[in-house]
Amino acid sequence: MSGDFVEIVEVSPRDGIQNEPTLLSTDDKLELIGRALDAGLRRMEVTSFVNPKRVPQMADAEAVAAGLPTDRGGRYIGLTLNRRGFDRAVACGLREANYALVASETFNIRNQGVPTDDSIAAFAEIRQSAPADVTVSLTVGAAFGCPFEGEVPLARLMAVIEACMVHAPAELALADTIGVATPADIKARISAVRSAFPDVPLRLHLHNTRNTGIANAWAGIEAGVRCLDASLGGVGGCPFAPRATGNIPTEDLVYMLERSGVKTGVSLEAAMDAALWLEGKLEKTVPGMVMKAGGFPKPQGEPGSSPRAA
Amino acid sequence: MSGDFVEIVEVSPRDGIQNEPTLLSTDDKLELIGRALDAGLRRMEVTSFVNPKRVPQMADAEAVAAGLPTDRGGRYIGLTLNRRGFDRAVACGLREANYALVASETFNIRNQGVPTDDSIAAFAEIRQSAPADVTVSLTVGAAFGCPFEGEVPLARLMAVIEACMVHAPAELALADTIGVATPADIKARISAVRSAFPDVPLRLHLHNTRNTGIANAWAGIEAGVRCLDASLGGVGGCPFAPRATGNIPTEDLVYMLERSGVKTGVSLEAAMDAALWLEGKLEKTVPGMVMKAGGFPKPQGEPGSSPRAA
Repeated sequence: MSGDFVEIVEVSPRDGIQNEPTLLSTDDKLELIGRALDAGLRRMEVTSFVNPKRVPQMADAEAVAAGLPTDRGGRYIGLTLNRRGFDRAVACGLREANYALVASETFNIRNQGVPTDDSIAAFAEIRQSAPADVTVSLTVGAAFGCPFEGEVPLARLMAVIEACMVHAPAELALADTIGVATPADIKARISAVRSAFPDVPLRLHLHNTRNTGIANAWAGIEAGVRCLDASLGGVGGCPFAPRATGNIPTEDLVYMLERSGVKTGVSLEAAMDAALWLEGKLEKTVPGMVMKAGGFPKPQGEPGSSPRAA
Repeated sequence: MSGDFVEIVEVSPRDGIQNEPTLLSTDDKLELIGRALDAGLRRMEVTSFVNPKRVPQMADAEAVAAGLPTDRGGRYIGLTLNRRGFDRAVACGLREANYALVASETFNIRNQGVPTDDSIAAFAEIRQSAPADVTVSLTVGAAFGCPFEGEVPLARLMAVIEACMVHAPAELALADTIGVATPADIKARISAVRSAFPDVPLRLHLHNTRNTGIANAWAGIEAGVRCLDASLGGVGGCPFAPRATGNIPTEDLVYMLERSGVKTGVSLEAAMDAALWLEGKLEKTVPGMVMKAGGFPKPQGEPGSSPRAA
């Protein structure tokens, strides 16, 4: 895989902070987005269009969208769970919507408020009515396990995906929403999806809840995935997924990939700086490890990559 | 790899606690060893025979060795860095010694007190004079990078290993002492060693300093390694390797492997209990993640694997 390019979708402005008790101001969110751009992160999930009573951190979605820099090569995504959210995303000028539903019925009802089939029907409607210049990608949550139902059988996952693929999402993401997957799971499910749908671009959304997140990222790349969600500092979690600790840390992923000869276009140093800045804003220790340990050591006496936190 | 067996060598009684400021009593160490046995961990690095002025936590090596249970199937290893340490290990009845040296010269001088060549000469002497019933395995530290020299060229690593292999260690471990390796590094170096020495059993000693530890474990298993060091709770670190945070957590490794159909002989529940007990004794939060998140969720209403810490 050395020489390959892997795209990292920065999700700290959305999944990263949505569950944080410390509310960031719109200006702080825009600064986070700017710092991510500084680091070379070009594609970003910048907000979600959900009920502000359920996710107060996302109440300023329109204001964030209005403040996005338009001259820095950023490609911005809004998360939507239903038609209303999609219409809000389009109305405020976003040109990519990530539509999310959940493979397990119980979790979809808890998170999306309706059965999975209703979410699929709404997706179909959105795809049919979406403006030609708006990209609609799809994320299938709990693709490797559900906090309420436990196992999510492969047959169930594939049935949900098949029902959605009829409506041709621009990209398909499998989400390990609660961080239960292992590399063997990743390979098996990516392989099954790839066999059934050889042409759709695949993305992985991983949480590092049980210490398998980075291993799963590597397994996904070995299985052919070339796009991964990650968050600076490893912040993040779903308010409706108990103990769904952070997304895989962007800078830790960059460390692994760049040391392996896989290009990401991301500056490790700048990503570590952005993660440290975010840590300061959240007023808590975040899970990222490379920001604490530093990058690969330089020979003594040479200036090198230093740890970013005590 | 489903159906395969991977042996986990529990190193919490040695690498796990050697750098901890909280000194455990000999009785606590023996209880830790007993709890590891309860969890199904049979092979264990129980202590090191080093200068107690440099590593005070290991000052009771002889007392630990004298107290080891002999009726529970445990296979106990003593770590040694030189002839004097080896003789101490044998004198107190241990039947396996793990001899450790470091691939990079600067680190060997700092940790072993002599150049690498001198450590190799001492290994030769030990192998020639070892009693017939004492197994001597070898661990090569800083096999993927050095905190003082940075890169450790593959040619240097192979030269050190070749000089040692003349003296026929029973097992060869590559140690990522400072946690810099990536899965690509693991595959490349395991492959090189395997090509040069197809018959020696291989072991990996990994630290999770930069979030790649569990990914590296998986990569090693994919490359054919069937023995891994790990520590309950992910405790551990080398006093002479700056910021070398813990070993890969035993219970996190067990979660990944058992969920992937790889057998370990270890009870995840009992390992989580032992990790929680150790966390209490060390009076600090330890890095293990499965002990915090719990195992794979059971369907709601069914008794399941619960988180072990708040």
